[in-house]
Amino acid sequence: MKETVCVVGLGKAGLPLAARMAECNFRVIGVDIDEKKVSMINSGKNPIPEESELFKLIKKYGGKSLIATTNYSDAKGCKAFLIIVPLFVNKNKQPDYSIVESAVRNVGKILKKKNLVVIETTVPVGTTENLVKKWIEEESGLNLEKGDFYLANSPERIKTGVAVSRYRDFPKVIGGVNKKSGEVAFKLYKRFVNKIQLVSNARTAEFIKIIEGIYRDVNIALANELFKVANELNIDYFEARKFANHKYCHLFLPSTGAGGHCIPVYPWFLISDMESKEKFSYSKLLRLSRELNDEMIKYWFELLIEKTRLINKPLSKIKICINGITFRQGVKELFHSRNLAFARLLKEKNLNVFVYDKMFSKEEIKKLGLNWLEPKKADIIFDSFKSRFFINKGGNKK
Amino acid sequence: MKETVCVVGLGKAGLPLAARMAECNFRVIGVDIDEKKVSMINSGKNPIPEESELFKLIKKYGGKSLIATTNYSDAKGCKAFLIIVPLFVNKNKQPDYSIVESAVRNVGKILKKKNLVVIETTVPVGTTENLVKKWIEEESGLNLEKGDFYLANSPERIKTGVAVSRYRDFPKVIGGVNKKSGEVAFKLYKRFVNKIQLVSNARTAEFIKIIEGIYRDVNIALANELFKVANELNIDYFEARKFANHKYCHLFLPSTGAGGHCIPVYPWFLISDMESKEKFSYSKLLRLSRELNDEMIKYWFELLIEKTRLINKPLSKIKICINGITFRQGVKELFHSRNLAFARLLKEKNLNVFVYDKMFSKEEIKKLGLNWLEPKKADIIFDSFKSRFFINKGGNKK
Repeated sequence: MKETVCVVGLGKAGLPLAARMAECNFRVIGVDIDEKKVSMINSGKNPIPEESELFKLIKKYGGKSLIATTNYSDAKGCKAFLIIVPLFVNKNKQPDYSIVESAVRNVGKILKKKNLVVIETTVPVGTTENLVKKWIEEESGLNLEKGDFYLANSPERIKTGVAVSRYRDFPKVIGGVNKKSGEVAFKLYKRFVNKIQLVSNARTAEFIKIIEGIYRDVNIALANELFKVANELNIDYFEARKFANHKYCHLFLPSTGAGGHCIPVYPWFLISDMESKEKFSYSKLLRLSRELNDEMIKYWFELLIEKTRLINKPLSKIKICINGITFRQGVKELFHSRNLAFARLLKEKNLNVFVYDKMFSKEEIKKLGLNWLEPKKADIIFDSFKSRFFINKGGNKK
Repeated sequence: MKETVCVVGLGKAGLPLAARMAECNFRVIGVDIDEKKVSMINSGKNPIPEESELFKLIKKYGGKSLIATTNYSDAKGCKAFLIIVPLFVNKNKQPDYSIVESAVRNVGKILKKKNLVVIETTVPVGTTENLVKKWIEEESGLNLEKGDFYLANSPERIKTGVAVSRYRDFPKVIGGVNKKSGEVAFKLYKRFVNKIQLVSNARTAEFIKIIEGIYRDVNIALANELFKVANELNIDYFEARKFANHKYCHLFLPSTGAGGHCIPVYPWFLISDMESKEKFSYSKLLRLSRELNDEMIKYWFELLIEKTRLINKPLSKIKICINGITFRQGVKELFHSRNLAFARLLKEKNLNVFVYDKMFSKEEIKKLGLNWLEPKKADIIFDSFKSRFFINKGGNKK
């Protein structure tokens, strides 16, 4: 008989995980608050079109060995609970645990002796061994130290579009809050993650995921800074980068900054932690990189103004089109999108700004409070994903 | 008949270049101020033992098709002059051009029409097209714009120990101060650099070399910052780094900072340039990384004090040994070595500090104003190249 596990959260990260486990011969109870999504999955329909591999898997397993539900009590009797729900930072850059806490407490209520809980959500270091442990113990009456249950952290390492295949070909880490927890969790994960690696503890697993994001954030900031310097020195940064990069050098492309749910969020986990301990000097580079990336739109504004001088029209009449407002090309997601923030900055500056994005309809753009225009009808276009301006020759003449 | 070229500077970068050109069927006149080195080369002896490949090449070509001299006039009649002499920054972090200027002016004095000059030294952006051009024109009476001579920049990309083989297997760029200069220089370089790439101009070539160093400097600073955070969170950074790194993540190792003639120097070329233009915000990350790396020894001092608490002796009696003082393992070079700076900081703090380095004799260590001791006789050892402390159990008991 198939072993039954529970995946809490059937979003962009959770559903690929649940589908992958179904594919690897588990019976999966997936819990989500979204009733529409739950019924889609149970009728074999994929609610996440970006993940093409899910169409086949949900069709095959949805409503059969992958059963979605809004009700935690349907997961009673599961041996393992994998929690993969969002965690945000609030306006003061402090983590907002409310969604994670609610999911963990709901799992705690149905947890039985010798069950395993794994946190897949990317969380600040120490969350699993402190907060999650406490919430589970409070709800379940079980005691971790006595060996009543097992608890581990294995941060998701998915990438939109290849979320399922990453379980086959990408390294992933897992760490327990104690030795036995690590071993139990590792044994389970080996069955569906090809490159799973057991690390010393849950803290280390949490830290690994955060520093991966930080590597990207700092290197995006570096690329942006060098892009400014190159412009100042009349050098094409794109050309220089192409020939500077080799196996020991990995300079990134310039951009409007870093968006999405990961890179702009994770550095704050460490920055807040160090600063709350008054260890300000331990996160200076992390904070500066975060700030440089978020302020990059001001520099693009300056570049835009410089470019508009090539157009023989009053600035107020120049039609500017931002082509691409998602945080990454091909992903319909606006969370912390700096391309969207750039459009809004131009609007705030009272420029004649329009937006185009092939993933959004005219109406959707309007709902964002922005004006829609096809790039070919603008005088100057900012291609968000190429980080380049283009002047429309037609527009120039009018 | 072999074409005759001149290489100015037969140091750690210049001699491998000269030898490589001799190997590729050029007749090479090598100019250097060091008479002893010149006579060694002419008698077939390699003056740079770190470069093992040079033994064979100098034996074969030294005094034959590779002729060393202290006299620029011996290079009269050469068609190309490759200048590869040091450039330092002074105490105010401004480039000190004196050695480069002297070499260029000496070449200018013997330069003939249609000759080519290539700067191999890593220099601030614009040096070749501004200063070098001016110095040559002043000395030679030739005019670049009129096509009297050709001028290009191709920054050396050697690495100690593999300086010769890099001409075979590592990418290298070249850029002319004008189109024709780029073409002429590229044609020459194709004959001895397997992966030579022509870029838009000399400025771009200069910039490429600098940003490669900056990539390393910033990523060393990032590793050092994350190392501090990891320690604070009771996580083994070395373990976390091992599992965080994959094909999109390249976190470095922690260290006492960045030493040698390259990485600590090149960022200042851009920082000084931006700051002199009052573009302070364009080099914030570069400056912070430089400062973080240079201040890292203070953090290692704090860690050392923490470790000494495990030794049952008064602090003043604890024998501390810094094992390794060169800036990199296996390279007998102390320029801007942060390991040496760490030893000196401990001395300044009146700790009982000793130094050991297998590349230096007891006498050489003493000449540096430091005390020598074998690691096994110390109570605590700092292994510079592993970035770890080791407590000697024997030492602990006494």
